[in-house]
Amino acid sequence: MVRAVQELLPAENIVYLGDTARLPYGSKSPETIRQFADEDVRFLLGHGVKAIVVACNTATAHALPQLREQYRVPILGVIEPGVEAALADPLAERIGVIGTRGTIESHAYQHALAQRRTGLMIYGQATPLLVPLVEENWLDHPATREVLTTYLKPLLTKGIDTLMLACTHYPLLVPALRELLPTEVRLVDSATTCAEHLQRELGRLDWLAPAGQAATLEIHLTDLSEQFEELAGRFLSKAPGRIRRAVLGNAVR
Amino acid sequence: MVRAVQELLPAENIVYLGDTARLPYGSKSPETIRQFADEDVRFLLGHGVKAIVVACNTATAHALPQLREQYRVPILGVIEPGVEAALADPLAERIGVIGTRGTIESHAYQHALAQRRTGLMIYGQATPLLVPLVEENWLDHPATREVLTTYLKPLLTKGIDTLMLACTHYPLLVPALRELLPTEVRLVDSATTCAEHLQRELGRLDWLAPAGQAATLEIHLTDLSEQFEELAGRFLSKAPGRIRRAVLGNAVR
Repeated sequence: MVRAVQELLPAENIVYLGDTARLPYGSKSPETIRQFADEDVRFLLGHGVKAIVVACNTATAHALPQLREQYRVPILGVIEPGVEAALADPLAERIGVIGTRGTIESHAYQHALAQRRTGLMIYGQATPLLVPLVEENWLDHPATREVLTTYLKPLLTKGIDTLMLACTHYPLLVPALRELLPTEVRLVDSATTCAEHLQRELGRLDWLAPAGQAATLEIHLTDLSEQFEELAGRFLSKAPGRIRRAVLGNAVR
Repeated sequence: MVRAVQELLPAENIVYLGDTARLPYGSKSPETIRQFADEDVRFLLGHGVKAIVVACNTATAHALPQLREQYRVPILGVIEPGVEAALADPLAERIGVIGTRGTIESHAYQHALAQRRTGLMIYGQATPLLVPLVEENWLDHPATREVLTTYLKPLLTKGIDTLMLACTHYPLLVPALRELLPTEVRLVDSATTCAEHLQRELGRLDWLAPAGQAATLEIHLTDLSEQFEELAGRFLSKAPGRIRRAVLGNAVR
């Protein structure tokens, strides 16, 4: 998501918070996700941001409505943009959605898709091993192919024409997915469309940064680990600068 | 670990705390692990326990010395018992250790083994995908075999005679490991030996519960999830009772 925003809005300063001390969010309960997301938003507001992207499908699924109600700054999730991207093809009608257990069991994608277009067939599939595989950097490993084969099988049986990557880690698996999917299945992720939504929202408010400004990327993590820098290098086109340790407000309850 | 303690010390009441809101610990930094472990111990002391088992290899590796210095109650880790179990065979000399990234990179096992017996060849291998595979219950899946094959290859090349399971999740993978390992390789885990250490320590202090007492198992989790109950059912011989939500003291900093 950072890369998509940098590409579309190169003049905007970005403050990134990664809750690495408590990740992954994907298999935790809605209540816990809502509490964590609230602490995350407070931290970012404390750093003077003008808009917030919840760049996590699980947090979007469980916490976005509550966050929008509670805070006045524009808060964008990744589900609406993903759904818009999936339905950009008027012929899409059999849609598979892969994501964490939290995202799939929330039925957030399934509801959002069904609200926008009637008659869709929607198949959600929880794929909890994909984040660990990406974090291990096994993007082209026989085990990854075995895992993907097992997860994709029920979706292929249903004859999907579109596969939504409902987790911000999954774009790194596109080459492996392409190998296993029939060529006519479209792969859809939300990063680019979400950056476009952000641009539109900032434009509407007349809050876009002046073009040509030298933008900054500030990275804050709740747990500092060497692995993050390596992973960030894989996701971003240029290496991130200094990474700071973030202190969030409340207790784990 | 709970099962091993129940089997050896059936009269002891057990208070279990699972920090499910922040798991896994295995890939987080030593500072974060120490802070989390300290909060965990305070919670258990608040529930009146007479001794504490740190039933997590990563937490033992990073936090045990500090915890023992800071608190007066007996605190047992899983590394010493594991090492004792591995060296129970006087012929063991080429020892493989598999565990999380945190456990392996701490070199806690490597140091503990080398201190006890000279001339050992010790090979540590981080195996971060095994916990997610166990949590997904893919104990007998082609992907699990692919993952294990990749992780075991460098250890088999070294001709290990002993393989230490340095993570409390791994005993569930014993059947899969047995299939892939030569029969002469011994598999060692720490649960039984650790329960024996606890019995010895409680005996020494004359703190053992009177035999025949009807013991209780209290389960506290920082995040309640349906998955835990299923997982607990797989680990324990009888299903756990009511599970409570735990509130830990401090902020994530």
